[in-house]
Amino acid sequence: MAQKPSIPRGTRDFSPVEMLRRNYIFDIIRKTFSIFGYLPIETPAMENLSTLLGKYGEEGDRLIFRILNSGNFLADLPSSLLAPGEANALSQKICEKGLRYDLTVPFARYVVQHRDEITFPFRRYQIQPVWRADKPQKGRYREFFQCDADVIGSDSLLNEAELIKIVDRVFRELKIGVTVKVNNRKILAAIAETAGAVDKITDITVSIDKLDKIGSDGVREELLQRGISAEVIDRLDPVINLSGSTASKLKELKVVLSGSSEGMKGIAEMEELFRCLGMEPLQAAVDLDLSLARGLNYYTGTIIEVRANDVAIGSICGGGRYDDLTGIFGLQGVSGVGISFGADRIYDVMLQLGLFPEQTGSATVALVINFGDEELPQLMNITRTLREAGIATELYPDSVKLKKQFAYADTRNIPVVIIAGSNEISAGQATVKNMKTGAQTTVHLSDLPSFIAGTGNS
Amino acid sequence: MAQKPSIPRGTRDFSPVEMLRRNYIFDIIRKTFSIFGYLPIETPAMENLSTLLGKYGEEGDRLIFRILNSGNFLADLPSSLLAPGEANALSQKICEKGLRYDLTVPFARYVVQHRDEITFPFRRYQIQPVWRADKPQKGRYREFFQCDADVIGSDSLLNEAELIKIVDRVFRELKIGVTVKVNNRKILAAIAETAGAVDKITDITVSIDKLDKIGSDGVREELLQRGISAEVIDRLDPVINLSGSTASKLKELKVVLSGSSEGMKGIAEMEELFRCLGMEPLQAAVDLDLSLARGLNYYTGTIIEVRANDVAIGSICGGGRYDDLTGIFGLQGVSGVGISFGADRIYDVMLQLGLFPEQTGSATVALVINFGDEELPQLMNITRTLREAGIATELYPDSVKLKKQFAYADTRNIPVVIIAGSNEISAGQATVKNMKTGAQTTVHLSDLPSFIAGTGNS
Repeated sequence: MAQKPSIPRGTRDFSPVEMLRRNYIFDIIRKTFSIFGYLPIETPAMENLSTLLGKYGEEGDRLIFRILNSGNFLADLPSSLLAPGEANALSQKICEKGLRYDLTVPFARYVVQHRDEITFPFRRYQIQPVWRADKPQKGRYREFFQCDADVIGSDSLLNEAELIKIVDRVFRELKIGVTVKVNNRKILAAIAETAGAVDKITDITVSIDKLDKIGSDGVREELLQRGISAEVIDRLDPVINLSGSTASKLKELKVVLSGSSEGMKGIAEMEELFRCLGMEPLQAAVDLDLSLARGLNYYTGTIIEVRANDVAIGSICGGGRYDDLTGIFGLQGVSGVGISFGADRIYDVMLQLGLFPEQTGSATVALVINFGDEELPQLMNITRTLREAGIATELYPDSVKLKKQFAYADTRNIPVVIIAGSNEISAGQATVKNMKTGAQTTVHLSDLPSFIAGTGNS
Repeated sequence: MAQKPSIPRGTRDFSPVEMLRRNYIFDIIRKTFSIFGYLPIETPAMENLSTLLGKYGEEGDRLIFRILNSGNFLADLPSSLLAPGEANALSQKICEKGLRYDLTVPFARYVVQHRDEITFPFRRYQIQPVWRADKPQKGRYREFFQCDADVIGSDSLLNEAELIKIVDRVFRELKIGVTVKVNNRKILAAIAETAGAVDKITDITVSIDKLDKIGSDGVREELLQRGISAEVIDRLDPVINLSGSTASKLKELKVVLSGSSEGMKGIAEMEELFRCLGMEPLQAAVDLDLSLARGLNYYTGTIIEVRANDVAIGSICGGGRYDDLTGIFGLQGVSGVGISFGADRIYDVMLQLGLFPEQTGSATVALVINFGDEELPQLMNITRTLREAGIATELYPDSVKLKKQFAYADTRNIPVVIIAGSNEISAGQATVKNMKTGAQTTVHLSDLPSFIAGTGNS
């Protein structure tokens, strides 16, 4: 026998069990998005490279999967490019398309392209795979799903509050205890400004973001390595290690950042957000966390990150406000805010905490035993009746030995087996076997659907 | 303003309306697959080219989108390949992965790769996009969805009958009148054998398949062009133009093909299939059509094709049995049969016949007018109560002029607007405006969810 076929590194097949579990998560996210008035869109897997390149930094550009042009892609190329050292320049010429890297940039492109058809504020959700040519490792894939919700065309902090309510509802329904951390990019910028290191904002936020991982000494060291002076680091120190309630942190920040109008604006935004959040009960704790920075460059206001309380796996959901996103495609002045659920990590958390319901939807409920040609019309009739009643049913396709058919039901975890041989059929009955308890019950054919519904398996 | 961004030719964005419609189709297909005991799987968008190449013929290989290897893809290449005429050879070296071309070959690969985890007979369904570097034209896209159901590991003709029942149920629920055409590859082979042109089976079936389009004279001419002698064509003629009921066609074929054991086997299979189909009522007509051949090479038994009765758009669903499919990956003797629904054409048929329900699921039902800070806690409370009752609700995010908020509801086709200013709130009431009729009703806050549910909009 030939070598087993395989799939590219970092990609996965989803088996039926994994699909049912993953869809359990998607269904809750989708239903919540929808109940909050978000509308679904989808964009193509392939985007023009001109849309994707330059939006995710140099590292991001490197991680975009490029698609070879069709046909004779080498025609009309300067021969100087056909040299071993010219991979980068050549790839620009022989590839015009790439696989999407996230859902946010395609969404920005969508909004600009379709702006005449869109009613603003536009609330959209999008659940699709994205691709990154990252080095595969445990928990990091080259193809994975993102579940994004964004509102575009409204500055109101109510949108941030609503997104946090979505987070709260999704994780409440999934039964995962979470903490929502929020911060504001304007406050971070004001901290850099106050420290006298405006041009170092990215270095500062990237380093601060690692506080949890490397501690404050580690952050100090990294800031030094990034060329920030000890004096500036000293000025940053009290802000990073701010403690107490959100209200008291904000109060103290108002003093420290009083010289920065941007900082005061950020503080006012946070106050407004916490005021909106205080108007109704949430299950999740929502905390101001000044060490929260998130890597991406496009956030300009609120930053949101969600962590599971009982599993150390990093962020399972995150997002923020970006004032300038559609600007890169030529449409200025449209503010947006969004969140993205990380389906893979949520899956892992659910699995680790044993949170998936035993029967996660839509697997086969009843197997009708195939006794052969003579009984076939009646067996088909039983099968059809159950299906019309909404019970997922299979008729075993071959009239093989009963033992084999029962073994199939067993391995497939089908909870109910229906035995209707010629004797049962002539009496207008069938025997229903509960595969978990082993109990057998004789049931009139007309009562079959309601009996099986009553077993709690459908 | 910069040039509007765009997407690659032959790809599409799906707007909310298009998504809701497409999901209406997918949901019915998915629910039907599931009620028949089919289990969902998904495979990665990228497969190794070794999995894809050589499975779809030369033309198919050309239409596979290839993904450029990451990093310095030109390293270690013989310089002879870096020449304008070497595109084909070079692409083999600089691309290891490609986008899937259909769902059948990845499924065969899945079955072989995971055969130790699979319980046979294995019924799987798969609803995912596929990609083809075809010349885009009306109704032909470079990215499109396929909806496939296959059973693998059972020879029984019951499987074919069940797949046709799935077809019947799906189109009954979608309210599309259809005709199912069936044929058998063994009968086609026997016809070629009887005509004395066994090696010309592909030429014969491809030509016969065009009977509807080019008429019998056209088929004759094409057969001649394909190097089939006039004498052989004469012998084929009576078979191609066979008429009457399925039973009488099969009866006549038994005489014509009596010299071919394969032909007799094909006829027996068709008789068994029609016997199984006769055991329960179907809405769709199912006809034996000897001109049905279908292009793909891997079918070995039954061939199925479905056409809409009231729209001339070609096949909207098709499939068949393939005995050798996993053989290409080294697993012999596993027979499979499957069907594939063409979501795009079904969408076009539904649109043309006006079959989409007006409100196709999950759009926003109620908009709560935003009166500003003072009323905000109460307005949030109303919004939350409606959402908890399962009513998709938005609170307008900004307290702008009422006119603007109503215009938003109007453009978005939101059927219900809830007006709760300070007067209404202090009376424990809200005004509900039906946006279709213009009628306004004053409702107690506690009755809001049931009142809105009663309008038939949620």
